[in-house]
Amino acid sequence: MTGQPPIVGVTMGDPAGVGPEIAAKAFADPRCRVACRPLLVGDADVMAEAVALTRAGLRVRRIASVAEARFDPATIDVLQVGAFDVGGLARGRVSPACGRASYDYVVGAIDLAMSGAIQATVTNPINKEAVAAAGLPSTGHTEIYARRTGTKRYTMMLVEGEFRVAHVSTHVSLREACDRVKKARVLEVIVLADAACRALGIARPRIAVAGLNPHAGENGLFGAEDRDEIQPAVGEAVAAGVAAEGPLPPDTVFSKLRGGLYDLVVAMYHDQGHIPTKLLGFQYDAKAGRWTSVAGVNVTLGLPIIRTSVDHGTAFDLAGTGQASCDSLLSAVGYAAALANSRRDSSPGEASG
Amino acid sequence: MTGQPPIVGVTMGDPAGVGPEIAAKAFADPRCRVACRPLLVGDADVMAEAVALTRAGLRVRRIASVAEARFDPATIDVLQVGAFDVGGLARGRVSPACGRASYDYVVGAIDLAMSGAIQATVTNPINKEAVAAAGLPSTGHTEIYARRTGTKRYTMMLVEGEFRVAHVSTHVSLREACDRVKKARVLEVIVLADAACRALGIARPRIAVAGLNPHAGENGLFGAEDRDEIQPAVGEAVAAGVAAEGPLPPDTVFSKLRGGLYDLVVAMYHDQGHIPTKLLGFQYDAKAGRWTSVAGVNVTLGLPIIRTSVDHGTAFDLAGTGQASCDSLLSAVGYAAALANSRRDSSPGEASG
Repeated sequence: MTGQPPIVGVTMGDPAGVGPEIAAKAFADPRCRVACRPLLVGDADVMAEAVALTRAGLRVRRIASVAEARFDPATIDVLQVGAFDVGGLARGRVSPACGRASYDYVVGAIDLAMSGAIQATVTNPINKEAVAAAGLPSTGHTEIYARRTGTKRYTMMLVEGEFRVAHVSTHVSLREACDRVKKARVLEVIVLADAACRALGIARPRIAVAGLNPHAGENGLFGAEDRDEIQPAVGEAVAAGVAAEGPLPPDTVFSKLRGGLYDLVVAMYHDQGHIPTKLLGFQYDAKAGRWTSVAGVNVTLGLPIIRTSVDHGTAFDLAGTGQASCDSLLSAVGYAAALANSRRDSSPGEASG
Repeated sequence: MTGQPPIVGVTMGDPAGVGPEIAAKAFADPRCRVACRPLLVGDADVMAEAVALTRAGLRVRRIASVAEARFDPATIDVLQVGAFDVGGLARGRVSPACGRASYDYVVGAIDLAMSGAIQATVTNPINKEAVAAAGLPSTGHTEIYARRTGTKRYTMMLVEGEFRVAHVSTHVSLREACDRVKKARVLEVIVLADAACRALGIARPRIAVAGLNPHAGENGLFGAEDRDEIQPAVGEAVAAGVAAEGPLPPDTVFSKLRGGLYDLVVAMYHDQGHIPTKLLGFQYDAKAGRWTSVAGVNVTLGLPIIRTSVDHGTAFDLAGTGQASCDSLLSAVGYAAALANSRRDSSPGEASG
């Protein structure tokens, strides 16, 4: 590999969502070009319309292989996957055609990364209903990546600046989330989180492990999981050399994370981690009646390839307006590039992931 | 009642914690004296030491009844409850004597408010272990207040500026919290929250009701409580004239609250509400290795008397250093005074609570 910036494949997301527009904006941003050599995996016609909608002022180049990409800052290289009928596109609507296309873009990006043709992948939002309407399994990106790469141990990390959270479980009911707080899984996530921080250049990551129950259970007074599952997992992690601490009271650990006492918090369930991260990254303006910023990056840990993502959805209400913010996508591209550089800098042959 | 500011009774909290010190600081702050006529319910000897530790520069006056209070800004009027042995005080330690004393201060303040001698109460932190060591039921302030005032329907509201959260449950395990998400209880909390906002002068409170499960369950995909319990409760609240909305996805509703779209969020469990409120109100400085600010107020809704509280604990690690911040206590005093003024301004004989 040369000293050139990594090639990062960005999926277009659901054609009816904000993905194409925020991609057009992000590809026009110099920060994107400094961080990496970006490539869009999707449809050139849809991107041409997105460029017009956002007045991004870029040319769209349809290519059939990574080798054809020129990475010219005035151009979006679009690796064409399938042939989407842009004439029939209804923005802001669920459709089987969009579900099918968005799924194919994801699979295309995964395969390019697995083959080594690109060094990292970044995903734009897909719509679960649309994917289901196309007759495909109604799952999220993370599950598609895990299945296609044969990965069994993985987790979702959310990042907003130096605020990082890895999750023991995500899209399950809160009752099932309680059931999933088991020593082996908690330990697995601590280890994945530690590796992720090291890959980001943190020499000795300080990992805070949140409790499950209020006040981390007050020694069994409010629930036993903190004492019986989380505490032993933290003990084993420490014995294995990880600077882990916990279980800590969930209601103050995120203030400590923001204050710089830790590099990452291991959260026990979806909202325990998502509520504080989105409170920091999402800005809603009541007067304007809209989100003015949706920063934050979603990183899948444990995969053999690099995958980051925006941490918002298709935002059908904004699609076609050119108003959606590309902050989160720019952060996701930056993160993917940083992880790719870190992986390249590791010794050849070293297994990372 | 005259046009004078309300008399607010502030309990001293556990003598070994930061309560006495932050009370000394707060009583020395002009904002406290503008908001109300403050009275300390506790021990004069402990307060004299706290004044010295914090260099608050106030005189301590031991009084036996509210009628003796002078409310001189250069003085702390201490309504003496019992006789604490200050010579034997070990700051930062759990002790039965401190547990007993802190409990007695709370009961003293409740009885003064129930008798009408004071118009509101504000509590400093007690330590559950110490209360238990004294052979008393190991519960929190809220439970003591509910029992002593014979209140059955109540809830905890956390407030940080315009950020208000009322809780369906608090100090129970997360599994039990799931069990407690029942239509009748959710409706009860929505109604208490609406009344609390009106008491704060909000003419038509906009109440957001958070879901229990990720994405508010995605219509039953991740748990049924959102659809089967919360949604009907919101429906009944709306039918009763409350501007309630929900169940809303928990991971973005707090960003919307902060953005001004709502006046209050009804949270389904302790950490759902506590994590975002403390993330906004608590500032931790890793370099200094300590909390630099712990703002935020805890208000018990549904009581026949007014009770607000700091939203932090005894902070035994800071006790005796004079370093603890009185921000949260000042906010709690201000809130108690505002609620007392609002109650006074209601028509005579009107039942409020």
